[in-house]
Amino acid sequence: MIKNTGNRRKRKGGSSRIQGTVHPRTNIMQQRLLHTPEGVRDLYGEEFEKKKAIQEKVLHLLSLYGYHEIQTPTFEFFDIFSREIGTTPSRELYKFFDREGNTLVLRPDMTPSIARCASKYYMEEELPIRFSYLGNTFLNGGSLQGRLKETTQIGAELIGDASVDADAELIAFVIQALLACGCRDFQVSIGQVEVFKGLAEEAGLSEETEYALREKISNKNIIAAEALLEEAGVEEKRKKAFLKIPELFGGLDRILEIQNMSEQERVHHALKRLKELYEILKYYQVERYITFDLGLLSKYNYYTGITFQAYTYEVGEPIAKGGRYDTLLSHFGKDSAAVGCTIQIDQLLLALIRQKNEIETAKKERILLYQKEARKEAILAAANYRKNGERVELILMAEDKTIEDYLAFAKRNGVEKLGIIHMDGTEEGRTV
Amino acid sequence: MIKNTGNRRKRKGGSSRIQGTVHPRTNIMQQRLLHTPEGVRDLYGEEFEKKKAIQEKVLHLLSLYGYHEIQTPTFEFFDIFSREIGTTPSRELYKFFDREGNTLVLRPDMTPSIARCASKYYMEEELPIRFSYLGNTFLNGGSLQGRLKETTQIGAELIGDASVDADAELIAFVIQALLACGCRDFQVSIGQVEVFKGLAEEAGLSEETEYALREKISNKNIIAAEALLEEAGVEEKRKKAFLKIPELFGGLDRILEIQNMSEQERVHHALKRLKELYEILKYYQVERYITFDLGLLSKYNYYTGITFQAYTYEVGEPIAKGGRYDTLLSHFGKDSAAVGCTIQIDQLLLALIRQKNEIETAKKERILLYQKEARKEAILAAANYRKNGERVELILMAEDKTIEDYLAFAKRNGVEKLGIIHMDGTEEGRTV
Repeated sequence: MIKNTGNRRKRKGGSSRIQGTVHPRTNIMQQRLLHTPEGVRDLYGEEFEKKKAIQEKVLHLLSLYGYHEIQTPTFEFFDIFSREIGTTPSRELYKFFDREGNTLVLRPDMTPSIARCASKYYMEEELPIRFSYLGNTFLNGGSLQGRLKETTQIGAELIGDASVDADAELIAFVIQALLACGCRDFQVSIGQVEVFKGLAEEAGLSEETEYALREKISNKNIIAAEALLEEAGVEEKRKKAFLKIPELFGGLDRILEIQNMSEQERVHHALKRLKELYEILKYYQVERYITFDLGLLSKYNYYTGITFQAYTYEVGEPIAKGGRYDTLLSHFGKDSAAVGCTIQIDQLLLALIRQKNEIETAKKERILLYQKEARKEAILAAANYRKNGERVELILMAEDKTIEDYLAFAKRNGVEKLGIIHMDGTEEGRTV
Repeated sequence: MIKNTGNRRKRKGGSSRIQGTVHPRTNIMQQRLLHTPEGVRDLYGEEFEKKKAIQEKVLHLLSLYGYHEIQTPTFEFFDIFSREIGTTPSRELYKFFDREGNTLVLRPDMTPSIARCASKYYMEEELPIRFSYLGNTFLNGGSLQGRLKETTQIGAELIGDASVDADAELIAFVIQALLACGCRDFQVSIGQVEVFKGLAEEAGLSEETEYALREKISNKNIIAAEALLEEAGVEEKRKKAFLKIPELFGGLDRILEIQNMSEQERVHHALKRLKELYEILKYYQVERYITFDLGLLSKYNYYTGITFQAYTYEVGEPIAKGGRYDTLLSHFGKDSAAVGCTIQIDQLLLALIRQKNEIETAKKERILLYQKEARKEAILAAANYRKNGERVELILMAEDKTIEDYLAFAKRNGVEKLGIIHMDGTEEGRTV
């Protein structure tokens, strides 16, 4: 049932555009029509029921945290995701035109859309706004990456709250959401982009060098990072601090080692805030899921404080992520601090299925069979079951089919009960 | 709260790209960034909660009818929506390219996608498959039409069942779904495209003439229809039958008047089937919502039997529609009859709001305020409320704000309860 085409293709190194099993009866033209584009897929049956179950759990927990769901359009003007905003690179966007010739983009990331929405409708609000969303995002990555190009995200944005308490709430929520979905073995890595930015300011790096260095350090490419720092003429002591970053992950003590390598107020303030964050996470009793990683530098340029990612085994990509973005809303004219998170529903689903985690799904179902003469009685019987909240598939028996055919049908579809409605309105139960 | 931009713009005849109220503090660049593209919109607050409530009711009823939800990609290869398939005209599609140069399309209609999916995964299944979906569809209509370009659809497709019972189930479901959402004054018009097609066959019309005539008749453009029939050299008696169609709406007796105007077996069979359909709808006890309309000829060319549309007051577009499409799946190599319906969630929402219908929404909510010293106690108090299923917004009091500010905040957001958590863990309730 798992059909993450991307990963399957990656492992097999197979050709594109082939997905699922195609029946040999179909001709070439028909087979062609059965395909979905590279990196997007169909979900059905038990797998989709599991996805729905996960979504409901996460959305329910968000509502308990007082977040209010909103919905933004699937596509936006290109400017919302431009380089200045600091989200996905332009080459990874799906772009097209409206009839007036404006460039439209399938949203690659929900945060800029929610920021736009909050700025538009809550420009004057000075107290914290809690928004949540369920939506699909789109990344036009290269086909060799083997990644899903359309993915479902459920997330939260806490806008207008600069406190470390807000940071903690989002991280605690992510952990509790993963636990609610039945995920057990996972870790949340917390980074703090201000440490890197503080060091960069201290070393007087150009914006360009800072950006390039960030990528090298994030990828733990020490040699390239060293060459870059050399070229920029950064002095030895400061160079050392930068090159230390990729090693600074694990417990809080480990990352605090950077304290002695910088005099920057910004760096010390960021570390102090991390310590406070950890204290609050203990109040939430979630500290066992936490590790720190100063090398965690998101590709999203809009982050200004903590960033975090949750990982579990069996999947390589994060199952949740987020961070603080205190300057993003100013692009839309609203001067508000903010912090957010998103649960990567498809990755989480894949992980839970691969980990053979039990995800509780759907209710029981019943098939009611009838012949034309008992039509009225069958319709009434079905209505009665439905009134009591029971799921009924009402089926007029085909002339060329036997009861055994329907029993086999029930069996292969996981339907447990089958009854035949007679003309006198009685029901004859049959064992599936 | 109603922001169907399309309709508003239509009424005002205003310029494009202006939506919502923009705060005067923002500069021009920022204001520009606040806009959504023409015909798409944000939903938030009570309006979105109402939308969610409607969606849940419809999906729940679908599950009671034994439909299984599936999810298909937001975009598909162009071929899935080509002219041969018989859905939306190409000029109304949002098209773009993938990295391999294939043309992709934002789905304008869910039915071809579900048909593709059913053919792909259930090619061999000979018994009825019930699929349901919740998804957004996209129509790149001209900006002067003033319509929403992204709309939410919830629908059902009953595949592999050619019976009139299946037709009745879908229509009965639509009526019960609308009733479940609190809609009262609505009507479902039922057409039967086979009557028109039978007459066209009898008259020996070319495909092109048939297509053009269908549009004229559907728009009740009698003069143009007459000219077309004249030009095609259709004999007087048959011409009369065609021109009668636009008048044939209302009760069943009214539309049966066409019986004497054609000898076509196809026409008589279609009428007989309509009579049988009406009998079954009585068993469902929904006949009071039914009218018939032989002039109801959908723009979707894939319909082969009944078609139907539900209307209510306060909105001009249908709130639900559907029909039978017995040949669509053969394009995908599966020879299966099918019938489907879709509830137009945005239109239904708009209608219910304009009709001042009460839509039950969200649960109560509580704000818990605290100062830094009572952080731990506040987090524990919130956790306790949430454990009992209560929604809590936990807020660290800002230094420049007073309790009165938070009381006002609670009031304007419809939050009924506000408590202050003290250092000793006690809660001081305040009246909002």
